[in-house]
Amino acid sequence: MGSTVTHLEAVQAARKTVSGKIERTPTRRIAGSDLDPRLDGLELVFKCEMFQKTGSFKIRGVLNKLASLSPEEKARGVVAMSSGNHAQAVAFGARMEGVPAAIVMPSYAVQYKIDATRALGADIVMCESQDLIATYMRTTQERDAVAIHPFDDPTVFSGAGTLGLELLEDAPDLDAAIVCAGGGGLLAGVATAIKSSKPDTRIVGVEPEGACAIRKSLDAGEMVTLSSVDTIADGLAPPFTGEHVMERVRQYVDDVAVVTDDEIREAMRLVIERLRLVVEPSGAAALAGLLTGRVGVSPGDVVGVTLSGGNINAERLKQLL
Amino acid sequence: MGSTVTHLEAVQAARKTVSGKIERTPTRRIAGSDLDPRLDGLELVFKCEMFQKTGSFKIRGVLNKLASLSPEEKARGVVAMSSGNHAQAVAFGARMEGVPAAIVMPSYAVQYKIDATRALGADIVMCESQDLIATYMRTTQERDAVAIHPFDDPTVFSGAGTLGLELLEDAPDLDAAIVCAGGGGLLAGVATAIKSSKPDTRIVGVEPEGACAIRKSLDAGEMVTLSSVDTIADGLAPPFTGEHVMERVRQYVDDVAVVTDDEIREAMRLVIERLRLVVEPSGAAALAGLLTGRVGVSPGDVVGVTLSGGNINAERLKQLL
Repeated sequence: MGSTVTHLEAVQAARKTVSGKIERTPTRRIAGSDLDPRLDGLELVFKCEMFQKTGSFKIRGVLNKLASLSPEEKARGVVAMSSGNHAQAVAFGARMEGVPAAIVMPSYAVQYKIDATRALGADIVMCESQDLIATYMRTTQERDAVAIHPFDDPTVFSGAGTLGLELLEDAPDLDAAIVCAGGGGLLAGVATAIKSSKPDTRIVGVEPEGACAIRKSLDAGEMVTLSSVDTIADGLAPPFTGEHVMERVRQYVDDVAVVTDDEIREAMRLVIERLRLVVEPSGAAALAGLLTGRVGVSPGDVVGVTLSGGNINAERLKQLL
Repeated sequence: MGSTVTHLEAVQAARKTVSGKIERTPTRRIAGSDLDPRLDGLELVFKCEMFQKTGSFKIRGVLNKLASLSPEEKARGVVAMSSGNHAQAVAFGARMEGVPAAIVMPSYAVQYKIDATRALGADIVMCESQDLIATYMRTTQERDAVAIHPFDDPTVFSGAGTLGLELLEDAPDLDAAIVCAGGGGLLAGVATAIKSSKPDTRIVGVEPEGACAIRKSLDAGEMVTLSSVDTIADGLAPPFTGEHVMERVRQYVDDVAVVTDDEIREAMRLVIERLRLVVEPSGAAALAGLLTGRVGVSPGDVVGVTLSGGNINAERLKQLL
């Protein structure tokens, strides 16, 4: 494929690349009133990505990226920077493809995600969060390895966009898609996939209040890096987004809403009690946005909601419930 | 159908009766080693009944029973005795069929199950657990209603047995099925369905140590009623089983194992962390039995495991994790 490949074609090509290697995760469709009175009149389609390999959507982008590398690049190995879900996906994908992997993880990463990543055979490099970028760049240089960005790479987020194609396949009558956003890779990919396929679909990203770099960058009209982050949604905690992501956000996303940690916890509880699914805080943000009424859907709408990951252990769950 | 209908045919007929009214719940198949090192070498097929209507398998038997009633019986209404899951199923099924329902619930029932049953429009009659049977019989008499037994009725447990047919349909290579048991309706039904269809399949029931009326009745060679029960598995807490159930257990069940509450909690945690599914204590007992090694499966076996319900709220889950 040359440079004339459209954004949608890139996602469709990613789907061919990763299919058979990832889970084709199920969706669950229920009446909004069965979940919460505030959602009365809506029809909800939940994308159950906690059942994905490594427990989150991240493996979709990672496998698409790994497939794009030459044999020579694969031999040099890969490096990733992540608080956990991207880390596990890179470690898992690299092992699957026989590629050496080093993962740079910030000190705020939760322990069970560090342990899970190490168990997958990757080298772990821990650092303080303010040294994250520097450590990442130094590690990449020292190992002469290929960096796999957690979100700001079209090859990575086109892979994430395959989730959007599956959602639309299960719900061709979709009126809106609500997508959790941290760095914004899932949002960029899903927005690309769905808006290009069905342009009248409303696409809204949802960020935690304590780490809303996309919302702030949109408001400022320029890239904003947060001086600190504070959220229970560790998977949505990067203090910045990226140019490639923001280009797609401006092109395909209708709005980006912000939710508090308490709103995320309430959404987690509803998913557990009503859907009987385990979702991590980051994975519940989209539903939190919908519950608060900040995403701008209309009565009668069929609304896709990403449950983007389920990497949480019993101890952490107990703290958050 | 006359009296010549076989046990298996009764389950097959129940399946026709309830299909379209219940969820055809999914199974999840994973390598035992992906769940716990103790299960290395086994292949597990989990029956995800937390996604069933009313959150447990109980609706299967209730709808089969309701379908067997005459219009005159339906007009008189139904009565059920239950700590929660059967209660919700009867309330839901009765509302679906336009039949009045009264539910007798013991004082040990958990509050959110009482609330859920009331929300479904049934009349609730609360009583102390030692008065359960008397209250049940009096309520039935006063209302001149049809009693729907929670387990010891072939029409009810033939309905529950439809879960076994679905499990075998998804895993025709099944070597064993491990089934949670309280009163024993699910065990009787599933054992009937699977043992009659594939006689070399090992069938094992699992009861909580603090409420193991089936195990004790088997050991004593006669029906044993427990003087008290003590278990976190409120859905498995009836202090007695029944003659119809025990007849099926003796005919179709290979063994009944017993697990502690701590073993049930550990199984719940594994289901949450590894399968990302929410299971209530009662629903995790079968897996607990498998983890303890007390169910007698062999390396290489394909083992069906019932996750029979997911009715738990966040507060209770927090207590148990």
